[in-house]
Amino acid sequence: MKRRHFLKNMTALGTTSLLVNQSLAETRFPGPPASTTGTRSSYENPQKTLYGQMQTHGLTPLQDLHGIITPSDLHFERHHSGIPDINPEQHYLYIHGLVDKPLKLSINDLKRFPSVSRICFIECAGNCQDYFKKGPETSLQQVAGMTSQSEWTGVRLSTLLRETGLRKNANWLLAEGEDAALLTRSIPVEKAMDDAIIAYAQNGEAIRPEQGYPLRLLLPGWEGSSCVKWLRRLEVGDQPWMTREETVKYTDPLKDGSVRQFSMIMDARSVITAPTYPHQIEKGWHEIRGLAWSGRGKIKKVEVSTDGGSHWLPTQLQGPVLSQAHTRFNIPWQWNGNETLLLSRATDDAGYTQPMVQTLIAARGIGSLRYHNNGVLGWRVKSDGRIYYEIVA
Amino acid sequence: MKRRHFLKNMTALGTTSLLVNQSLAETRFPGPPASTTGTRSSYENPQKTLYGQMQTHGLTPLQDLHGIITPSDLHFERHHSGIPDINPEQHYLYIHGLVDKPLKLSINDLKRFPSVSRICFIECAGNCQDYFKKGPETSLQQVAGMTSQSEWTGVRLSTLLRETGLRKNANWLLAEGEDAALLTRSIPVEKAMDDAIIAYAQNGEAIRPEQGYPLRLLLPGWEGSSCVKWLRRLEVGDQPWMTREETVKYTDPLKDGSVRQFSMIMDARSVITAPTYPHQIEKGWHEIRGLAWSGRGKIKKVEVSTDGGSHWLPTQLQGPVLSQAHTRFNIPWQWNGNETLLLSRATDDAGYTQPMVQTLIAARGIGSLRYHNNGVLGWRVKSDGRIYYEIVA
Repeated sequence: MKRRHFLKNMTALGTTSLLVNQSLAETRFPGPPASTTGTRSSYENPQKTLYGQMQTHGLTPLQDLHGIITPSDLHFERHHSGIPDINPEQHYLYIHGLVDKPLKLSINDLKRFPSVSRICFIECAGNCQDYFKKGPETSLQQVAGMTSQSEWTGVRLSTLLRETGLRKNANWLLAEGEDAALLTRSIPVEKAMDDAIIAYAQNGEAIRPEQGYPLRLLLPGWEGSSCVKWLRRLEVGDQPWMTREETVKYTDPLKDGSVRQFSMIMDARSVITAPTYPHQIEKGWHEIRGLAWSGRGKIKKVEVSTDGGSHWLPTQLQGPVLSQAHTRFNIPWQWNGNETLLLSRATDDAGYTQPMVQTLIAARGIGSLRYHNNGVLGWRVKSDGRIYYEIVA
Repeated sequence: MKRRHFLKNMTALGTTSLLVNQSLAETRFPGPPASTTGTRSSYENPQKTLYGQMQTHGLTPLQDLHGIITPSDLHFERHHSGIPDINPEQHYLYIHGLVDKPLKLSINDLKRFPSVSRICFIECAGNCQDYFKKGPETSLQQVAGMTSQSEWTGVRLSTLLRETGLRKNANWLLAEGEDAALLTRSIPVEKAMDDAIIAYAQNGEAIRPEQGYPLRLLLPGWEGSSCVKWLRRLEVGDQPWMTREETVKYTDPLKDGSVRQFSMIMDARSVITAPTYPHQIEKGWHEIRGLAWSGRGKIKKVEVSTDGGSHWLPTQLQGPVLSQAHTRFNIPWQWNGNETLLLSRATDDAGYTQPMVQTLIAARGIGSLRYHNNGVLGWRVKSDGRIYYEIVA
């Protein structure tokens, strides 16, 4: 990389003797020792933004985070009836229905099976759903904070279904959660046998309560509500159950009055994480940073526009680039002090490129933007360097 | 995979109607809503083991963890003078000495530079140092808990050194921490210009206080004490400083009375994480799980012996297999109920294979086992299924 002088205001030191002498002259006292579990610095206070009348949503502060791993206690939350308090000793996973041998599995039973870990995102189908209602003073957290990423560990569902056996006409599974809502979703057997995981761990430790402790159905790349939390039951059947969460909710009305159902894959999306509201930048070199992901595979490229879409520049992807996973991108950018608009768009290895919102509307109608709204997002840079959220058509 | 029947004691369900009826009959109440930061389940209490008269060590519970990411609050700690309380607004990184332009950089200055993230382990050079003193009732945490893994984010040190410029004879850097000990280590310029990172984030958020908040020198694959925490100063010079931590400590006495100095790369090592003490297993199929890593590159293979070293079996490595990173391995194993000894050994992509301890002693003498003791570890399986730590020659 060329020397781009990212900092004009760095302090050049005339002499360093002062510094070294200071080190030697100080009297210093030992700090506190090691502890059984660490805590954050008192100078740091990252928080989820709570949302909804009943605080049914907790949004991840994407604009404050680095890398691709979301700290477990900052992973977004979306509940349909609050967080159940589950004693793992009394929790079982039942697999029954069109199977040869129904099973009742304890957490310890599940941990004995061959384990698998993978780093992948979970995103709420409704992420960015209030797209058109946001004002300019909206943080990325508020716009797109319903996606987070963890390393999940558990048992492949295919391993368990080979243990139970599947009968003829076993086409769908009903996944049921232990929350008060008994949230249920119908899952095609193809996905269950492909890459579904019955997860018991997140980022190395037991899944957090708000993420489904002690068991969560992980469907990599699929909308969050299908990744049923507090999983207690899988019933195998020959057709979908048409539950509330796949009829009244989590469906996409189309222009012709029909409704798209079971549209569970999260298509490619990208967000710029910096600079975003409420950042204020100075003239000179900056790094535009962001995250991109696709439920259909790996991110192939991310482009950024620094002129409102007239030109698109290739960004650098940071490895590891994993399938169905948040992927970091960045690109150096010299801001000349003029007002402009920053955009980003992702392309996945299926060849699909994140669309402009107008393309989504043309294809699916305006009612479709509630769920699966993966349109390009904009950040307006004002001439004073302040950054604001902007809806781009 | 063949159906190996990992569980003999799974409960086969005769009928499921009872279960479904139960679901419908229950009265259920909503749980608590989302919160700004989550907490662990009250049923989970993972802890570091504290060690040392002054609690200078906190050891990671490797036997309880899954995947490759260590939760930040369970990352091992090793302090030389406790944890300093640093206000990031008043903390600077000074780079001076044999440079063209000495610099004083704030945390915000550093965050403006191009950023880089990578997942890698940090391991104390003294991990496993009390190898010969452990009794059979020793957990993996106590044996080898001074290694942990995070995703670290920061600025490449090479980026900063290109900004300052390096004078002729700039061969070494002195890295100094802000702790009361002012811990200092000499680092070759080659490593600084290769892959060293001035890290400000760990697993997505600000580095934890016990891990060096707000800045840590990250030297991927090098011993933990060289990854100076609470970093405040880098002085560029023409030779090493011969500080306490590279003369009295962190050196390896050899058989001939000489001392190996600046042996900072952590060679390939593996540990079985399950089954280990205090697990008790039943006859039948199990999965032997573990972690392997090398400071010299990627793990190429891990072999496991289930008969005390007579035969070695290839294990499956779980992706992503990253350079200088903990890598998961696993292998199914059918225990027949007879007493036996489990071993693991790692080979890295430099072609180096983790040695038996006797090989280490033959090469470096017994005094050398304090630091860089990467000999093969053993776990004795008694006929009652109880597992015990065992020193293997």
